[in-house]
Amino acid sequence: MSELSPYLNSVAKQIDRMIDRYYVDRAGELNKASAHLLAAGGKRLRPAVVMLAADAVKPGSSDDLMQAALALEVTHTFTLIHDDIMDDDSLRRGVQTVHTKWDMPTGILAGDVLYARAFEHICLVDAKDEAKVRAVKILAKACADICEGQHMDMSFEHRTDVSEGEYMEMVRKKTGVLYAAAAGIGAVLAGGNTVQVKALYNFGLNTGIAFQIQDDLIDLLTPSEKSGKDQASDLREGKQTIIMIKAREKGLDLQKYRRDLSAADINESIRELTAAGVIDEVKKIATDLVADSNKHLSILPDSKERQLLMDIGEFFVTRSS
Amino acid sequence: MSELSPYLNSVAKQIDRMIDRYYVDRAGELNKASAHLLAAGGKRLRPAVVMLAADAVKPGSSDDLMQAALALEVTHTFTLIHDDIMDDDSLRRGVQTVHTKWDMPTGILAGDVLYARAFEHICLVDAKDEAKVRAVKILAKACADICEGQHMDMSFEHRTDVSEGEYMEMVRKKTGVLYAAAAGIGAVLAGGNTVQVKALYNFGLNTGIAFQIQDDLIDLLTPSEKSGKDQASDLREGKQTIIMIKAREKGLDLQKYRRDLSAADINESIRELTAAGVIDEVKKIATDLVADSNKHLSILPDSKERQLLMDIGEFFVTRSS
Repeated sequence: MSELSPYLNSVAKQIDRMIDRYYVDRAGELNKASAHLLAAGGKRLRPAVVMLAADAVKPGSSDDLMQAALALEVTHTFTLIHDDIMDDDSLRRGVQTVHTKWDMPTGILAGDVLYARAFEHICLVDAKDEAKVRAVKILAKACADICEGQHMDMSFEHRTDVSEGEYMEMVRKKTGVLYAAAAGIGAVLAGGNTVQVKALYNFGLNTGIAFQIQDDLIDLLTPSEKSGKDQASDLREGKQTIIMIKAREKGLDLQKYRRDLSAADINESIRELTAAGVIDEVKKIATDLVADSNKHLSILPDSKERQLLMDIGEFFVTRSS
Repeated sequence: MSELSPYLNSVAKQIDRMIDRYYVDRAGELNKASAHLLAAGGKRLRPAVVMLAADAVKPGSSDDLMQAALALEVTHTFTLIHDDIMDDDSLRRGVQTVHTKWDMPTGILAGDVLYARAFEHICLVDAKDEAKVRAVKILAKACADICEGQHMDMSFEHRTDVSEGEYMEMVRKKTGVLYAAAAGIGAVLAGGNTVQVKALYNFGLNTGIAFQIQDDLIDLLTPSEKSGKDQASDLREGKQTIIMIKAREKGLDLQKYRRDLSAADINESIRELTAAGVIDEVKKIATDLVADSNKHLSILPDSKERQLLMDIGEFFVTRSS
């Protein structure tokens, strides 16, 4: 995985430059609000997946597809802006959220502007029209699914009986489909055949789900100093994560942790969940998903890019922040 | 114009059936919220413009483009759902607004789902891929413009010095571009050449602006019993409409009407504005726009559909509700 980090850095720099060009350097208050979160950094993982998928199908093709890579980052950012309004979160990526810095109507509109721009970027790709139409279809379907995933996630807040199946369906839609779209769109626009597109789509779907499961683990296990987030906030809020669901299956009562938690309380919860085998089981779900993702990639010829895609999957489930 | 009304009724019936099929008959709470306003009726004017533009370019082509006609109605409805949240309006088309019947997060998501579906519908049209990509581009640009128009409209609320130029720019974006997109997309998907597409786009743009100006006149002139809306609400709220702007140019003080208004007060304001020539000037702006629209259509061969497009323009500026 030693090559992954420099690769991701190089993609991030390219995307940052495009964001400057297409978003930051534009006049007008609504444009500023649309650019705000886009320009606040981020790992640009979805653009990297678009580019790697394209190059894994047709070496060197990603140069022509940078507009599609940007489209995925722009789509992701629009969903974050709208999510922040719904959850009334005030901070994201170390900056004020859009509806906090401006207001709720501007937040809705800033997200809506990015939504449109994502489709414009796809149309600007240097590829066959037939491929662009397929890419638009994949992106539009992903956007509709993300909305359903976010709606499911919010509906879970009022429940304590969410099943593993429901959780996986929510994560598939809320997080998985956009990684799936990233890989699928890269493959389509690079001229991939149906089998290749499907394989890359499924690769993205599984790694995306694994990414979210790892996020649930990080929330519990990573100290705030390292993650930059409040440790064990899911536990404190009684959120229906895969950890919570697996614990319930084993008869563990985590309701007692729905309160202010000291460092000792958090350690006790981790000890309890580890002893019951919950942590290992959740980790296994994530690593199994990644292993399955890699199988999808076996239909592609061996290449540096195919290896980097596998490295991304590996990175998703081993990161601790 | 005797043929316009039955034509519009027939389009509305077709679109209503598609809405039933693609939206109403779907399970799930978010789908219900997305379908709510779509199913609450409406004149389906934008779909009619898509179909007439297509048939004016290539007779009979609209049969293959119903998905695009639906896309325009779905786009319009998404903007209404989000606007209702921003303006916190509780009623629309005689039913509760989405965020009132459900809640704000569901309103945002219901709009976002329709946004995605609009692009999916375009992809489903039976047309050349090159035309579909152009249609996606036109629709995406229109969506971004509508956001800017809505943002301008909201920013006007804090001002009393909006110029005619600023007003026209706002209306062009908020209302004009979606009619422009409707006509342009119909022409593109029917296989129209660049000149035809541009002509129909500009036809839609001008008639759309005229439509909004007529809305401003209706607000002031049409009694509530007939319009179903509160008469003179713009005046009472000090809204920067073209009537308000023209009145200011003539040195009329309408600030005195920013209060509860009796029927006598409203009649007095109408008398004052009429005497100063404001009403006639505003009507002339709208009718000039429609006359200009019709000139754009002169490059098309004479046809029933071209006449119906002209009739729609005429209808926009003569309707009183």
